[in-house]
Amino acid sequence: MPRHPHVSPTVQTMPGSVFSRLAHRIAAIEGERYPLHVGDTWMEPPDGARMENFSVADHPGMHCYPPPVGHPDLVQEIARQRGVDPARVLVTLGATGAWHAVAGAVLAPGDEVLVPAPYWPLFPGIVRSVGGVPVDVPFYDPAAFVPGGKASSPMTPAEAVARVARHVTERTVALYLNSPSNPTGVVLAPEVLRALAEFARAHGLWIWSDEVYELYNYGPAVRPVSTVAPERTFSTFSFSKAHGLAGCRVGYVIVPEVAGMRDQVRKMAMHAAFSAPRPSQLAALAILDRSIGPPWVTRARAAYQAAGNRAADRLRLPRPAGGAFLFVDVSRALRPEDADPLHSFLIRCIDRGLVLAPGRSSGAPYTHHVRLCFTSAAPDVVDRGVDVLSELLKLD
Amino acid sequence: MPRHPHVSPTVQTMPGSVFSRLAHRIAAIEGERYPLHVGDTWMEPPDGARMENFSVADHPGMHCYPPPVGHPDLVQEIARQRGVDPARVLVTLGATGAWHAVAGAVLAPGDEVLVPAPYWPLFPGIVRSVGGVPVDVPFYDPAAFVPGGKASSPMTPAEAVARVARHVTERTVALYLNSPSNPTGVVLAPEVLRALAEFARAHGLWIWSDEVYELYNYGPAVRPVSTVAPERTFSTFSFSKAHGLAGCRVGYVIVPEVAGMRDQVRKMAMHAAFSAPRPSQLAALAILDRSIGPPWVTRARAAYQAAGNRAADRLRLPRPAGGAFLFVDVSRALRPEDADPLHSFLIRCIDRGLVLAPGRSSGAPYTHHVRLCFTSAAPDVVDRGVDVLSELLKLD
Repeated sequence: MPRHPHVSPTVQTMPGSVFSRLAHRIAAIEGERYPLHVGDTWMEPPDGARMENFSVADHPGMHCYPPPVGHPDLVQEIARQRGVDPARVLVTLGATGAWHAVAGAVLAPGDEVLVPAPYWPLFPGIVRSVGGVPVDVPFYDPAAFVPGGKASSPMTPAEAVARVARHVTERTVALYLNSPSNPTGVVLAPEVLRALAEFARAHGLWIWSDEVYELYNYGPAVRPVSTVAPERTFSTFSFSKAHGLAGCRVGYVIVPEVAGMRDQVRKMAMHAAFSAPRPSQLAALAILDRSIGPPWVTRARAAYQAAGNRAADRLRLPRPAGGAFLFVDVSRALRPEDADPLHSFLIRCIDRGLVLAPGRSSGAPYTHHVRLCFTSAAPDVVDRGVDVLSELLKLD
Repeated sequence: MPRHPHVSPTVQTMPGSVFSRLAHRIAAIEGERYPLHVGDTWMEPPDGARMENFSVADHPGMHCYPPPVGHPDLVQEIARQRGVDPARVLVTLGATGAWHAVAGAVLAPGDEVLVPAPYWPLFPGIVRSVGGVPVDVPFYDPAAFVPGGKASSPMTPAEAVARVARHVTERTVALYLNSPSNPTGVVLAPEVLRALAEFARAHGLWIWSDEVYELYNYGPAVRPVSTVAPERTFSTFSFSKAHGLAGCRVGYVIVPEVAGMRDQVRKMAMHAAFSAPRPSQLAALAILDRSIGPPWVTRARAAYQAAGNRAADRLRLPRPAGGAFLFVDVSRALRPEDADPLHSFLIRCIDRGLVLAPGRSSGAPYTHHVRLCFTSAAPDVVDRGVDVLSELLKLD
């Protein structure tokens, strides 16, 4: 057979681990480590929503299969709190599981998804994994990533639409939005969301609204885009970053008001991993209890925002409006004579204990950027890691 | 855009829920229920491998992301116990997650996988979810499914190869094997596995060996096919049925001795759901401790085998050689005048509290069969459910 032992052309288009080239250097770190490369959170989840809180005595059968759409009580409670029909809710393996299932349900091979850049590094590979084509849309103002750079004025609705519009083709099927943004920390203004929703409607596009950082908006609340365009918006949410449960793989998607849509998304999710874990769903249900989730989020938000602000101030960047990341232009510290200047810079960071994510995982143009997560380690560790970066950038 | 709101042609080829048409009838059951339709297990997992056994105090960070390939200690211990290189082990979201990732890594769109029938209902949809084509191979002797039928002689190696060989085309890429089998309970003899491995080698096919019921082989041990053809065998294992952890979504795949193969499979797995849950991986690691897993399996195997034997005897079928299922030809109870005789029969079962899976989910020819899981409820419940089926089949 000619195909053996070839691998699928689909998987060949997907990005591999960006850290495998760095793994041996990371393993060799002596002294303190500053692991600010992973998008994760350092706070243990709320008491009452930890695995140790769920016993077989209280929850017989808690290790058995749940229904593939999700634990009925969890689906009901999500629907009640979100004010949507329970038939629009699908519990998923975090937002990753949600987007994989949505992409698989909606995209024909070759269909295109507009992805504002810089973006969440995993997202384009998810689109590719089902045969879709992610289309990079330079979207956020690169001046905002430059330490000590001029403060840029907020994006206007017309600018936002213009940036997206030039990438629309006959194959465009969806517009991905992620606000608060990983990795830029930008929160899109209500009038920008409305303009983009109008644009999507005019072009008959789905809106894929990734709202996993909704609880970590450090400014005024913004009505989600789903309220503007419920007929075309898939909204995803996750207990991962929101509640310290990234390793428990639980989140959900609210599908648009389109008959039968949840069934299609469920089919993809079920054939990729069957269901979200049942114990994790019990934790999620506990979190939705207002005595458990919200007080914890209040504390987490204060801690994360303070860490983000300190990091931004130290790096002379705009303070993050939301989320868990700073995206930093490190041009001033790169050496053009290096074969791969960014890689060499990441190594210099690692040699001082600091691990950062390469910017090009968030888009091809970002060859001179890094992503820094300010929630992946305790605040004092983040502070010391940021000090290292500041020194390497010679910001003092 | 012409595509909105259409769904993907890929997902349209995938089977939906076979129980949605029956859901309202199942919900309306009064009196005792016999839920023998789901492939699940009734025993709570071993003490020491339950979520309540893992605390944040003992396992700081236990709710954070694990590495996408799996918790390093778990990968190492699996490799040690299986006698393989750790670089061939990928921890997955059960066997479902493993097959989705393998299929995505190996199959180009349109590539074919040979699937001996009757088969695990979820499997063909997994192949379709990545654009592959599952090819039904009538494989197991249908006489063995007929209550009171003649005992059939075991399949010879030549018969096994002949049944598979007639379905090979230029697009065939893999041969799926599942021994012990869901749903037939058959364990393939060593000489049959060897012959099929030779056949796969001659045709340059991958072997996809689904060994999730390996610990529930009720007869003599059989050396797995991976030992015969390590260069082409993907083997999957799961803690789901094996250890009562189906809802925890953890299993693993051992990839063939092909350079870089695990990376390709990992890419697919990572973009479908990121990783197996970290708490579930702690449970899996505990189970591999010989004081926790094996004694529990000894008890579970005895209980499951006894329940399977009682069910088979009552239904006048061959006793299962392994696994958790009986596949039953219910022709004698179908009414040809019904519009959908099997559906009507399933309804008659439900009206007596008994829920069974339709045989056609295991292959198109099985329009007059049902699948019964004898491990999904406590033995006395299974016994009473089997009594109902026996009465409807008028076997007394």
